[in-house]
Amino acid sequence: VKLSFITLLFCILFLTGTIKSQQLTEIDTNYLNYSNKITKTALADTFGYSLLRKLCSFGGRLAGSDHLVKAEDFMINEICKMGFDSVFTQTFSTVNWKRGEIGKFEVRGTKFDTEQQGSSKSEGGWTLGVDGWEKISEGTPATGNGQPATGFSIAAIGGSIGTNGVLKGEVIEISNLSELDSRKDEIKGKIVFFNFPFEQGVYNSFESYGPAVNYRVNGAWRAAQYGAKAILIRSVASNFDDVPHTGTLRYVDTIPKIPAAALGVQSAVNLSKLLEMQANSKLGIDKLEFQLELDCRTEGFTNVRNIIAEIKGSEKKNEIIVIGGHFDSWDVGEGAHDDGAGCVQSIEVLYLMKKLGIKPKRTVRAVLFANEENGLAGGRGYGSTSIGEGNIHYAAIESDRGGFVPRGFDVDSTPEIIVRMQGWLPYFEKTGIDWIKKGGSGADISQIKDVKGLIGFVPDSQRYFIIHHSANDVFNSVDMRELELGSAAITIMTLMISDFGF
Amino acid sequence: VKLSFITLLFCILFLTGTIKSQQLTEIDTNYLNYSNKITKTALADTFGYSLLRKLCSFGGRLAGSDHLVKAEDFMINEICKMGFDSVFTQTFSTVNWKRGEIGKFEVRGTKFDTEQQGSSKSEGGWTLGVDGWEKISEGTPATGNGQPATGFSIAAIGGSIGTNGVLKGEVIEISNLSELDSRKDEIKGKIVFFNFPFEQGVYNSFESYGPAVNYRVNGAWRAAQYGAKAILIRSVASNFDDVPHTGTLRYVDTIPKIPAAALGVQSAVNLSKLLEMQANSKLGIDKLEFQLELDCRTEGFTNVRNIIAEIKGSEKKNEIIVIGGHFDSWDVGEGAHDDGAGCVQSIEVLYLMKKLGIKPKRTVRAVLFANEENGLAGGRGYGSTSIGEGNIHYAAIESDRGGFVPRGFDVDSTPEIIVRMQGWLPYFEKTGIDWIKKGGSGADISQIKDVKGLIGFVPDSQRYFIIHHSANDVFNSVDMRELELGSAAITIMTLMISDFGF
Repeated sequence: VKLSFITLLFCILFLTGTIKSQQLTEIDTNYLNYSNKITKTALADTFGYSLLRKLCSFGGRLAGSDHLVKAEDFMINEICKMGFDSVFTQTFSTVNWKRGEIGKFEVRGTKFDTEQQGSSKSEGGWTLGVDGWEKISEGTPATGNGQPATGFSIAAIGGSIGTNGVLKGEVIEISNLSELDSRKDEIKGKIVFFNFPFEQGVYNSFESYGPAVNYRVNGAWRAAQYGAKAILIRSVASNFDDVPHTGTLRYVDTIPKIPAAALGVQSAVNLSKLLEMQANSKLGIDKLEFQLELDCRTEGFTNVRNIIAEIKGSEKKNEIIVIGGHFDSWDVGEGAHDDGAGCVQSIEVLYLMKKLGIKPKRTVRAVLFANEENGLAGGRGYGSTSIGEGNIHYAAIESDRGGFVPRGFDVDSTPEIIVRMQGWLPYFEKTGIDWIKKGGSGADISQIKDVKGLIGFVPDSQRYFIIHHSANDVFNSVDMRELELGSAAITIMTLMISDFGF
Repeated sequence: VKLSFITLLFCILFLTGTIKSQQLTEIDTNYLNYSNKITKTALADTFGYSLLRKLCSFGGRLAGSDHLVKAEDFMINEICKMGFDSVFTQTFSTVNWKRGEIGKFEVRGTKFDTEQQGSSKSEGGWTLGVDGWEKISEGTPATGNGQPATGFSIAAIGGSIGTNGVLKGEVIEISNLSELDSRKDEIKGKIVFFNFPFEQGVYNSFESYGPAVNYRVNGAWRAAQYGAKAILIRSVASNFDDVPHTGTLRYVDTIPKIPAAALGVQSAVNLSKLLEMQANSKLGIDKLEFQLELDCRTEGFTNVRNIIAEIKGSEKKNEIIVIGGHFDSWDVGEGAHDDGAGCVQSIEVLYLMKKLGIKPKRTVRAVLFANEENGLAGGRGYGSTSIGEGNIHYAAIESDRGGFVPRGFDVDSTPEIIVRMQGWLPYFEKTGIDWIKKGGSGADISQIKDVKGLIGFVPDSQRYFIIHHSANDVFNSVDMRELELGSAAITIMTLMISDFGF
């Protein structure tokens, strides 16, 4: 075998690179046995999957909801029964946003009476039904049956103000923020419809999430700058159903707050077609009138809890490894993948260690963070609290990308530590973990200061944006084996860090 | 950086090993661009996913069914419209097995009349309903309403003979073949119930399939050796629903053929509990009588077709690269993952090359193999046919492990060729392909002789044995992005082999 200097250099670059990295260390047979037992036990016991089933039965766990309080009580009770070294909670205050009961977006068509000369009043309304436009008698509301006449499917964006009754207006479709800026004079008094599609052609679906979610987060204040009355966005979703996806938005103090809602992808496509047909006079309707009604509102503040359980280290008690997910979720689903999965996986790490008689050298602490979705109160709060005299946070692992099949770990640490961790890959062979590389970790754990390594568990991302922040995020969308392999992978990583160290 | 000789040796071992392999070659920017375009186009156009939707609409495609003939005609027509260099079919004869209309497995309980002394006749029957055992009047069939009284869910195993009316018998539960052999004197005249569970604790679910499927394939003749009347197996499935999974069986000429059916997993668990309770006198029933009825049968032979389309190579026309899946499926689902997915991916390879203006140097041929499920007539037939004077098969790639997210390629070839192929991994970075290693290819392509490389596409296996050979294998169980990434990965592999060669 001939390895030239250049080849060696390439070799080293690859070994420390992102594609396929491998640091060569001696494999410890004891720990190889541990990791095989961990995987086998996770898949066979399905502890996390069973716990997730119960957790999801409470419904979505938004801060301020009864569901959340019941789910917190349930989880604390479950964990207390498991016999860990300590269980405790931390309480924080956060914003109490309510979706309310009303979320409607409807269109009504008006046709001017051309036969009755001299009158410019409309003769009656037309409503867009399943069979096309149907005439309705004057004065009849377009949506007498309580359903949107056009089937537009919407959900208020989290944090949005309500419409304070029915908000009527023209809709202007805008493709992106540059177009918004260049058409700023046309925006005033209108409902801005940001129809920015999810880029399909990308392997890592989180890369497509970034550009699209910008409209959900910043669309309202950007449109309000130019006098818009309200905004609608196309849901940030990778598939083509009509389930709207919610999430947070940002208002800017100096700019008026306007209502914001997300349309299901099919509804967004239909609305776009409708506007295009009307622009080309192909609807046979003289005027379209849109009505938006949302009664969402913020009702002061509410308390939320971080739920924490730990196994003390056998040798280095004061060095803490946090494993976490966030306990809250959006209200529209059951918070199964986002992030019930990460929570039950974190508890399962402790369960597996206890069940298999593994005594970690460093302290292992599962943290179920409160209120990641609309405030990050739990993550910020945990990050800013004292953790006891002489204690340090040695490492933290977050699982908040769904309960899908494991692919790798993203590590926010020094190149030396990452290379060292890549040497552990053989221990992960039977979990689906194929790589360990440099990358961001997670919203909650990144609030913790002075940690040697922040680690993001990376499951496969193909199906995440089908369920994310939507009514699709239910227990049934989680696969048992995929979830459990994630638990196994995180447990093995925790054990490696605990016992081998960086 | 210090690399000792031992480290280097380790390095080389790892580079040629199975976990994480990386051969270092210069990356050709043109081909990197090609591969990125291929992935992007697959995900954006969703050609294969759309074709699969249509293909699945015909229903299961078992040899001898009308569904199959219609689906073949549809597919040939679709391919002919696409403008490839040639499209042709090959016709073979295979066994024409029919499931029939009746598939029932029921239990009836009998209680002897203890109050009426001197009589040993049964007073009446008891049927096991949702509320436990209910008394029925004498002579009333336990299943008067046409539904199994106990809710046992079954499907005949493909190739099984029927029961020729109702087959009554005791059931003996057997855990494995050793137990069968050691209890051979208890088998005669009974229905043998092989209750062998799917081993959950294994990452690669195909490793658990092997031991479990042995009972489906060989259970009937093994039990018949000892005089069994019929067999039931626990479905070979990784989840816990009650959908029975079919598949083929093997009869041995010198041993009587007996009927064979698969129970849904829940039904198998329930049957086992029932037998255990009865053995422990916990049912309050004196005798259990089981009835099995299947009218499945073999009706001679039927014709099936291989469907073949190709793009001629621009430089080495006579060197053929086959990409294939099998066109037939079991009748109980829609053959979506198994193996509609492999078929549409194979056609999509040609579609993507044509759409992107890629002219492969070697000839690329998509083969949709007939009758893999119950005869392998298409694979055997293709393997034995002349492929034209001077033509050789250079390589073959099979996709028959479902339309799930890509993980790697198993390669049946020389170590040198495998190492060379590992050097192509960077081209696959955005498809989910993380490894290329030594391994088996697939049932159909392994019939082709004198090929330099036989390659099995390996998607993630976690959800495969939920759907495999069952009514769960429908279009809705396929994820668009997962399927399309598979198409992209296979297309890139085809292009690498075509243009770089081994």
